[in-house]
Amino acid sequence: MRGFDDSEFQSRTERAQSLMDKAGLAALLLTTEPELRYFTGYLTRFWESPTRPWFLIVPASGKPVAVIPSIGAALMGQTWIEDIRTWSAPDLADDGVSLLAETLRDVCPDGTLIGVPDGHETHVRMPLADLKRVQDGLGNRRLGSDNGILRALRMIKSPAEIEKIETACAIAGRAFHRVSEIANEGVTLDEVFRRFQMLCLEEGADWVPYLAGGAERGGYTDVISPARPIPLRSGDVLMLDTGLVWDGYFCDFDRNWSIGAASSNVRDAHAVLIEASDAAFNIAHPGATAADLFHAMNQVLSRHSGDTGAGRLGHGVGMSLTEWPSLIPSDHTVLEPGMVLTLEPGIAVADKILVHEENIVITNDAPRFISPKAPAELPEI
Amino acid sequence: MRGFDDSEFQSRTERAQSLMDKAGLAALLLTTEPELRYFTGYLTRFWESPTRPWFLIVPASGKPVAVIPSIGAALMGQTWIEDIRTWSAPDLADDGVSLLAETLRDVCPDGTLIGVPDGHETHVRMPLADLKRVQDGLGNRRLGSDNGILRALRMIKSPAEIEKIETACAIAGRAFHRVSEIANEGVTLDEVFRRFQMLCLEEGADWVPYLAGGAERGGYTDVISPARPIPLRSGDVLMLDTGLVWDGYFCDFDRNWSIGAASSNVRDAHAVLIEASDAAFNIAHPGATAADLFHAMNQVLSRHSGDTGAGRLGHGVGMSLTEWPSLIPSDHTVLEPGMVLTLEPGIAVADKILVHEENIVITNDAPRFISPKAPAELPEI
Repeated sequence: MRGFDDSEFQSRTERAQSLMDKAGLAALLLTTEPELRYFTGYLTRFWESPTRPWFLIVPASGKPVAVIPSIGAALMGQTWIEDIRTWSAPDLADDGVSLLAETLRDVCPDGTLIGVPDGHETHVRMPLADLKRVQDGLGNRRLGSDNGILRALRMIKSPAEIEKIETACAIAGRAFHRVSEIANEGVTLDEVFRRFQMLCLEEGADWVPYLAGGAERGGYTDVISPARPIPLRSGDVLMLDTGLVWDGYFCDFDRNWSIGAASSNVRDAHAVLIEASDAAFNIAHPGATAADLFHAMNQVLSRHSGDTGAGRLGHGVGMSLTEWPSLIPSDHTVLEPGMVLTLEPGIAVADKILVHEENIVITNDAPRFISPKAPAELPEI
Repeated sequence: MRGFDDSEFQSRTERAQSLMDKAGLAALLLTTEPELRYFTGYLTRFWESPTRPWFLIVPASGKPVAVIPSIGAALMGQTWIEDIRTWSAPDLADDGVSLLAETLRDVCPDGTLIGVPDGHETHVRMPLADLKRVQDGLGNRRLGSDNGILRALRMIKSPAEIEKIETACAIAGRAFHRVSEIANEGVTLDEVFRRFQMLCLEEGADWVPYLAGGAERGGYTDVISPARPIPLRSGDVLMLDTGLVWDGYFCDFDRNWSIGAASSNVRDAHAVLIEASDAAFNIAHPGATAADLFHAMNQVLSRHSGDTGAGRLGHGVGMSLTEWPSLIPSDHTVLEPGMVLTLEPGIAVADKILVHEENIVITNDAPRFISPKAPAELPEI
């Protein structure tokens, strides 16, 4: 099923309002794509355009209020949102600022506090000068932190959300399964990237916002570079890491292949990565922490390698390619049923790195792989 | 050629520094993808992940200084940037804040002003709470506006940049030319979207960040909705609008097709759109303004239709899908050689709309179409 029942948005909104009440917030002011979509279902690739700001206000009770450019009115009108206020954007004199301030004054009593997501992984998607103007237009209402409410809500996925992420994972799994059709000795890496995105689309992806990878002898130098027109050679390890989207939800996992026969070093390293992600998987129960998963993997990895520079060994995934929490020693987020995580151990092999990634969901019982789990043995093409 | 010679980045930096000098700025602080890439050539799809902030400082003289997560060090090390300061991100206690403040204190004398892009089409890509912490860590240096310096620089494209945009346009042109291979009566619109993205990749796109469109009887309701699984029917007007990327540069134009025979209303409307974009093209010389182009198109359109709600009739395009200026009555930006613009007239036909879009470059002489110009006659499939 595409989209969600209205009851899903109702429930998200009520949970937000309950947390807002505890935090003493009269409203939330939201400006980024996943935040708006979380409460409305408003799904469009138009956010690629940086021109227009978009605003959503979650009031203390009742449905959210949209304050958006007129170009979005028709699509927003198809969601469960009823109060949709628009202006003709771009407006160089007043790009939604007065309309937003006026709406916030309508919604929030005098002297109240309005929460804006302001912590890790957030930003305010509007011009800084306009944010100051909005603040000046609020009378004695103040903008403050959302106290992590958005993070807390989005971290726990509903069954319907998990289904969408699983659909994305299954699509990527089928595309990965077909990589030997497109990647062979002599094919350039940029051509592999292009053809792999085509496979993802052919297997059902709506679009492919993210693809990274590498292919060098015995590993790769990093995992974020664009693909270069360099032919695959025997002895290369090819890695493809995709965040494809189905109905607005991401998967995020990778696969490795050896072009021709793999060295024993590389084969061993790949087996260690699988051992590491299994170690985290095995303890990924409610009550364990993000840091626990890090340590479970790191204990396996530290027997073999130095730091890859990645900064973490996994993270949340959902409406965004990467979400809270981070699998690092200092993230003590307690796992709860409904969290969807990537396990992403990396290892240094001589002067190269290897990275492996799976997607799992935390349940009341054992966790579950939602990416089709890779075998310990590195496949050869 | 992929990438740019270092001299391109040198020249961009020197032009920035000359404008900074006039504006009394000791440095620019940049946080978003195109801003960082403009001065460094740092090209990666990793920005899809919202987790980590990235910073670039353009000092009053000398090369820019990168303050970035360690995961980006290897790739940034391949650019012309020499001073690369990294931290292991994400760091929940201090996610680059101290390192950034320290670097700004190094680069900027006491009592100086640091410019941050803060006007239309900008945002600061870092947590709001961290931005305040950085400000607090600067002593008596202050963060202020960049005075539109980034906008002014990026609006005028170099010959090498124009070449990349033209390459993207040519790829999209070839993909549009093949649409009859994938779009026929009975094929669902979401399948057309999927297959069209595959055509773009097959024709050479690095990736396809943006695809919008519609297909309904006699036009479409809006141009930003995701594609639904509804079969094309005879009498539908199919529109596809793509922003695909080659080497980090976008094209942005669309094409319309009639599925089966088009009504005379629809044929006439399409011809009016072409007449409108031609009217703007014909006056798109240095010295004319963005508003002049709007009025040239609007004069043709207003003989026929009401407002489509789009808010403008074209815009800049380059490293982002949409850039300054906007073709609206209040944008008096004077055209200069090197600007790349979209002409995007829209028209209402009964309760539907039709939109047409071309990409042009402003030169010292006549402007030039860099999208393969659509014929006035609406093609039928």
